[in-house]
This record gives sequence, C-alpha cells and structure tokens, in this order.
Amino acid sequence: MPDVIPNDSVGLVTPQIQHFDEPLTLRSGRVLEKYDLIYETYGELNADRSNAVLICHALSGDHHAAGYHSMDDKKPGWWETCIGPGKPIDTNRFFVVSLNNLGGCAGSTGPTSTNPETGKPYGPEFPIVAVRDWVNSQARLADVLGIDVWAAVIGGSLGGMQVLRWSIQFPERLKHAVVIASAPKLSAQNIAFNEVARQAIAKDPDFHDGWYQEKNTLPKAGLMQARMLGHLTYLSDDAMRQKFGRELREGKLNYSFAPEFQVESYLHYQGEKFSTRFDANTYMLMTKALDYFDPARDHDNDLRKCLSQAQCRFLVMSFTTDWRFAPARSEEIVNALIHADKEVSYACIESDNGHDAFLLPIPRYLDIFQAYMDGVAERSFEGATA
Amino acid sequence: MPDVIPNDSVGLVTPQIQHFDEPLTLRSGRVLEKYDLIYETYGELNADRSNAVLICHALSGDHHAAGYHSMDDKKPGWWETCIGPGKPIDTNRFFVVSLNNLGGCAGSTGPTSTNPETGKPYGPEFPIVAVRDWVNSQARLADVLGIDVWAAVIGGSLGGMQVLRWSIQFPERLKHAVVIASAPKLSAQNIAFNEVARQAIAKDPDFHDGWYQEKNTLPKAGLMQARMLGHLTYLSDDAMRQKFGRELREGKLNYSFAPEFQVESYLHYQGEKFSTRFDANTYMLMTKALDYFDPARDHDNDLRKCLSQAQCRFLVMSFTTDWRFAPARSEEIVNALIHADKEVSYACIESDNGHDAFLLPIPRYLDIFQAYMDGVAERSFEGATA
Repeated sequence: MPDVIPNDSVGLVTPQIQHFDEPLTLRSGRVLEKYDLIYETYGELNADRSNAVLICHALSGDHHAAGYHSMDDKKPGWWETCIGPGKPIDTNRFFVVSLNNLGGCAGSTGPTSTNPETGKPYGPEFPIVAVRDWVNSQARLADVLGIDVWAAVIGGSLGGMQVLRWSIQFPERLKHAVVIASAPKLSAQNIAFNEVARQAIAKDPDFHDGWYQEKNTLPKAGLMQARMLGHLTYLSDDAMRQKFGRELREGKLNYSFAPEFQVESYLHYQGEKFSTRFDANTYMLMTKALDYFDPARDHDNDLRKCLSQAQCRFLVMSFTTDWRFAPARSEEIVNALIHADKEVSYACIESDNGHDAFLLPIPRYLDIFQAYMDGVAERSFEGATA
Repeated sequence: MPDVIPNDSVGLVTPQIQHFDEPLTLRSGRVLEKYDLIYETYGELNADRSNAVLICHALSGDHHAAGYHSMDDKKPGWWETCIGPGKPIDTNRFFVVSLNNLGGCAGSTGPTSTNPETGKPYGPEFPIVAVRDWVNSQARLADVLGIDVWAAVIGGSLGGMQVLRWSIQFPERLKHAVVIASAPKLSAQNIAFNEVARQAIAKDPDFHDGWYQEKNTLPKAGLMQARMLGHLTYLSDDAMRQKFGRELREGKLNYSFAPEFQVESYLHYQGEKFSTRFDANTYMLMTKALDYFDPARDHDNDLRKCLSQAQCRFLVMSFTTDWRFAPARSEEIVNALIHADKEVSYACIESDNGHDAFLLPIPRYLDIFQAYMDGVAERSFEGATA
C-alpha cells in the first residue's frame, strides 16, 4: 500500500458476507441448500437505487476489485485501473457491487467451505456451477441489496460471459451490459488449454482426487503448472517479446534444466505465487464453467435468437493481440446483437498485451469505457435528476 | 500396413546402426567418447555420390521417415507424404538419408543408452546437445557414407533449424537447404511453452529427477501433459474448430471432470499414446535444443551476417495458420538471406492445419516442394549426366 492512499482510489474497504437460506437449484440439477456470498461495495447507493453496477469476475478473480483491505496491503483490488473516483466506473457516481462467485475460494461458499451434510469441507463434492447459476445467485444478492435494476452489469473474460447471461436471464433487471474481452462460447482450442491445465492439477499426487484438505496437502505443483500455462496464454507473443525477449537470467546459457531465460523465471514466480493463494478445486470448477458456457445452445445454436431476448444496451470491447478471446469472438457477439436489432457499441482496442489488456491502463480503452459510462449515468439516473 | 504396399511408398526398409569411436566435443563442453547413430536410407546413391539428401527430424521424430519396417506396421514413416517414388523427395532420383539424432530415443545414443563410464543408462546425465552438435554428428555420418556434398539438406520445425545450421557450419557440403515451418530462434512465448511442458515432466513423481529407468517407472502423466500441450499448439484454432467444434462425446454435458468434449478425448488419446513410446529425458533435451538455437548470437545478433557464410541455395516454406512457427519467423530468414545476397525461394502456403501442416498432403505445398526438388536434381546431377 502506498504511504498515502491515492485520490483516485476507493481507499480502505471491508468485505461483507451475505448468508442465503433459500435453496439454489443448479444447472446440473444439484441443489445448494444454503450458501454465503462475500462482496464489497464502493460508492453510495442513491435514493431511488438507480446507480448500482455489478462487477462480474473472471477465472482467478474475486470480490476485491478495488481499494485496499488494510494499510499493510501491498496491492489494491484487481480492477483498480477501472474502478474509483473519476475512473471509468466512477465511484462518485455509481454504487459498485463486486462479489466472489459461488465455488470460489475467497470467502463465498465453495470447495473449501464446510459441507453442512458431512461437517467436512466439500472438496471435490462441491457441485459444478454454471454461469447461469452465478447469475441467479447474483440476482438474489441484488434482491437483498434492494437493487431491482442494475444501471450496468460489467465484466471481462469469464466475467463478460456472466454479463451476456444476465442480459438474457433477467432482461428487465439491467439497463446496460459491458462485455470485455469475452466470447459467446469457448473454442475447441480454449477448451483444450483448460483441459491441459486440469490434467496438470488432477495428476498431481497431492491432489488426492480433490481431497487434499483432508490429507493436509496442497497440489501446488499442478496448480503452478496450470497457472504458468494460463498466464502464458493471457500474454501475446509480442508482449512477451517486449518484456523478456530471449534475455538470459545470468547472461549466458548454462546447459542445464534450471530456468535460464527470464521468461521461464517469470512464469515460475507467477505460478508459485498462485499455487499457494488459489484453491485447486475452485480452479477446476471455474474452467468447467468456462467450457460449458454456450447460451445459444438452447436457441438452436443461433446467437441472434438467443440475444434477441435482451432489453439492455451493450458495450463490447476487445483487444487486438488477445488470442485466447480474440476480437473475432467479440465480433460474433456484436454481429448477433446487430442482427437482433439491439443497441451495441463496439471498440477493438489496439494493444500489445494480449488477454491481460482488460486489466491495464490503456488510454483508448479507459477513454471509451469512461465515455460509455457517462452515458450509462446520464440514461440511468443523472438525466432523471437534472 | 495396407495389404499391398502402395506404388509411391519406398516399401519395406531396415534401419542401420553406425558406431562412432572418435570423441565428439559438444557445445556444452562435455564430450561423448563414443556413440551410435541409427539411420535409414531410401533410393540409390549414384556413381558420383551427388544425389544424396539428408532429412533432419523435429522434436518427436526419428530416423523412420518413410516406408514400413514390417508387414505388420500400422503406419508408415512420419514423412511418407513427401518421401517416395514420384513424391517431392523422389526416391527414384535421390538417395535419402534419415537418422535419429543424438539424445534421441529411437536407437541413436541417448538418455536410455548405457553410459560406458557407469554401465548404467545415462538417464539425466546424458549431456544437453545443441543443434550444432547434431550437425557435427550428421557430418560424420556423411563421411562414413562417402557423401562429401549433399544435394540438399531438408527439415521442418526443429529440423529446419538443423538445415540452417548446416548452411553456415559446413557451407561447402550442401548445395540446397530446404527450411520448412521453422524460425531463426524461438520466441519468448515458444520458450515458455517448452518450459511448461518440461515442468509437467519434471514435477511428475515418477520422473525421479530423470532416474525413472533405475526405479522401473515411467513419468507417463508428465509426458502425456507435455504432449497434450504440444499437440494443441501444433494445431490452429481453425483446425480444431473444424475437427472438433464443441462436439460432446456423449451428446450432452455430464457436469463432471471426465473428458466431455471430443477435443479433450482426442488430446488424452494422443498424450497417452506418446507417453509410452517416447522417452521423457529425450523430450527434455529436444526442447532445450530448441530453446538454445540462435545462430545469430555469435554474429552480433545479426542474422544477415550469420547467413552470409552460406553458399547454398535456399527454399523456405511456411504455413498461414502456423502460430508456433509463424510465417513472420520464416520471413525473417528470407529477409536475412536476401540482404546477404543469397538465392532464396519462399512460399507461404495457405493451410488451416497450423504447424502440423508440414506433414500433410497440401497440394500447393507438395507442388512447390516437388518443383524445387526438380531443380535440385537438375542442378546437382541430372543436368550433369544429361
């Protein structure tokens, strides 16, 4: 944490936990009898509750999207770039809600939580959750917070899939959908990358078929490999070339199998850090939610027909060097929305940073995002109160 | 094996083993006191020994490039598409030599061979070999076979790197260099993919730091993951979409972690098959040779200066959807060759098949390859005897 909290940060924030007792029937047919959702809010809800926006997180994200938990925090929340006073998601104007999804490992009910039926952690018995299940649970959180209609639902990557699902599942409950670096469904290549990552975890002998908590172990090696692979695919070839080139850690080849190139050390570091902070069963669940997402499947595989149910306006953004969720995938969404006669703005942002770009302060990205959010405020509440 | 050997196959072939007693000093400084190379030949060496071509193999390849070892063989050699009577590398005209590289696991001296100093398998103590070491060993094999000058040295991927190295290491010993789907050096992204694969192997508890032979185990899980990842990156996103789409093995989602999408089953199958046929230490060595290859490093990182030593003509070919060894990487070679005033032909072949395209019967690829090899024959021996 900096010595002084920057003016454009939401500052110190405290997560809250909401308990739910009403059973939630999941896409898989299984039922969560009760569960908790952990969330944070930034900014103030206005009198007519019209300025609320929901942030949906991606694979490894959580509820802590902005600000600091304590003065000892080294880093702010994961989307500090975009959330705060004067930023695109301007907390002087919007009431921002950010939660950890079901199945997560940051405080919402997930594999590390106690299964009330057994008194032990769920572990691998935690049900596989689908994007629609998250949206249902998010709607219940909105009910508790007294938010009938979101001014906007916003997310990148897997978060963008939740936004798309919101637009067709509760069309009357959001005015704007912001879908960033996302896709209407994963490609075979994306599913394949996820499966290689899952195999790395599942084959780690410390995984114990997901019962590592009971065994007092952690499948760190598997999770590290999964993260190394993920991280590598979130960067573009260009970004890696600029960042690492073929630089050698010690300036010369050692003819050994120890990490020699800087890119190797970097990935090792990222992988190891992740392997102690993230839960392996959650990683398995999140990747499955990604693989399964395909809202057009229920509409004769016709995305236009699927999205014709939406009633909100859309902003879709993509990044030129993102090859996990390439611009062409965002354009499938845009094309379907235009065919379905929806209002959609689209920006493909020039960037060298691959999929990770949606987390970075790229001027045109922030500018377009901010301008669009101005319109969201204008249409949702400021125009009304002027 | 088909019931009848096709007319355009070299048919039944028998590998030969050549023993070398002269010590080979490697790039790493270590010395192989003696070693064997296993190789196959197809076609007949002509009287003035001017029709010989050398095939250099890629990461998981070996000496068995064409034909069948027995009538029970289910598959021919790995480059049957391009080698045989009437094919681009026409065995009616050329004498083709194909060997397994040092460090390999198909019969040449490598990690599974007995270390004469210990009487046990080398295992992880087999020295790391560089592309230049392979070229040196290939030159010694040429000496034994009485081949002073190759009509052409030919290879794809890591094989193409050996061809480039031949052109500068023994410039007077080849007339043509055919470099297919290759690169002048790996990018950071490529190195990163290799490191993730190596980690998968090294972290497999059955790897035992490379001493699995002594422990009577095989790091099958790690090798399977490495191969799944490799295979995935050799295919293009388009090829995977066409081949698998998002088809489900059983027609519906099971909400389980078992392979559900066809692309997952395919990769599992490929990975498992590989994990029993390939040696893990060899995989480690081959990927390191790839990472280290960077011939311009000794020439102020100036590829033009490096390639100016070459005296042969070049054919360079790339494939549009190959993202591991993208056309832009081949074009770096072409640009440097033109700047160095060398004769170079270049074709970027339209293909959906990613890096694997160089093994496939793509009409324009075979046509250009064949036409160029006509010229090789004409310039190397047919013109002379006409």
